Amino acid sequence: MTEAKRLAGERAIDYVEDGMIVGVGTGSTVAFFIDALARIKDRIRGTVSSSEQSTRRLQMHGIEVLDLNSTGPLSLYVDGADECDPHKRLIKGGGAALTREKIIAEASDKFVCIIDPAKRVDVLGRFPLPIEVVPMARSLVARQIVAKTGGQPVWRDGVVTDNGNVVLDVHNLSITDPVGVETALNQIPGVVSVGLFARRPADVVIVGGEPPLVF
Amino acid sequence: MTEAKRLAGERAIDYVEDGMIVGVGTGSTVAFFIDALARIKDRIRGTVSSSEQSTRRLQMHGIEVLDLNSTGPLSLYVDGADECDPHKRLIKGGGAALTREKIIAEASDKFVCIIDPAKRVDVLGRFPLPIEVVPMARSLVARQIVAKTGGQPVWRDGVVTDNGNVVLDVHNLSITDPVGVETALNQIPGVVSVGLFARRPADVVIVGGEPPLVF
Repeated sequence: MTEAKRLAGERAIDYVEDGMIVGVGTGSTVAFFIDALARIKDRIRGTVSSSEQSTRRLQMHGIEVLDLNSTGPLSLYVDGADECDPHKRLIKGGGAALTREKIIAEASDKFVCIIDPAKRVDVLGRFPLPIEVVPMARSLVARQIVAKTGGQPVWRDGVVTDNGNVVLDVHNLSITDPVGVETALNQIPGVVSVGLFARRPADVVIVGGEPPLVF
Repeated sequence: MTEAKRLAGERAIDYVEDGMIVGVGTGSTVAFFIDALARIKDRIRGTVSSSEQSTRRLQMHGIEVLDLNSTGPLSLYVDGADECDPHKRLIKGGGAALTREKIIAEASDKFVCIIDPAKRVDVLGRFPLPIEVVPMARSLVARQIVAKTGGQPVWRDGVVTDNGNVVLDVHNLSITDPVGVETALNQIPGVVSVGLFARRPADVVIVGGEPPLVF
């Protein structure tokens, strides 16, 4: 699986054009993309990072990390996913970086998602759906998730996001209407972001392999 | 106007029943409610507070402040507003406490809103609409607000909320469809909460005066 992640991460370099500011996601597959990006770092203007973890890896390679508020819209965002369906809709947030990832995806013209084959599913929901929540709303949001989705929210105990919030992982979902579920959960007060990327799915998916599958 | 605020805050005590845990909002009108609540503090089980400011005033009076995660749903929430329309839909957030206020309102069976007469409007939007935003999304959200509403977002410079976020105040709105605007703005990645209380409006509005007007 590590080899598949490397192949996916390196293939994403094909989408990087000279002079770009590149949005960079988080996770083990993205780490291979960052390492490949380092080899062409003189061709890009810089990056916007979705996590402290990726920022450290980028800076270790001498790649500049910029503030999204100063860059304006981005041309390209490269990130992994925990699940991907045939319509390029995703579950993300296993690494608790979902809010910043969602912000950068929204700010980008093209979202290239890099995954290994195990992340492909027909219907999203086998992977528990992460939801970032303001701490004082944890119980309220959990009750409403049960009422709205029938899923089982589990508090990811001990985890605090880069934004100072908590994460609920919703188990036992079969998400046949991802846009509807994302839209409904976004309305619950105290929800900061939902780890469903359906309203703004990926534009291109690269599945690591020999050769990589691109759809 | 101070007298109207006092009359509204004191009238809200009529809704407090023995043994309740009372949700308490934030602001100058709520301060009068807190002072009145202190006189009957032995009749209630405690409070849930929407801000550090209200927590200090409650504790100064020896009133217990509880964590919403431990109380479960509340019977009563008492809070002010920056604007109130005839359908009891509100704009709140002038004091930057909108996210916690929205969470407590959602968790409560009855929301009693206490205002002075100057807060009543026919159409919401004369008061700039506050939106709490994750800091890195400030520019992205501002661009989308312009595109979705036509309003003019202004960064409330120097203000950081109790949740570590920033506030955009949206000027030049005339909100004829508050539920639609609230629902749409909730979908923007990086938006933590919208200062429109339309999906969950107040249940009772008390307008301070001699005698107070209740609707």
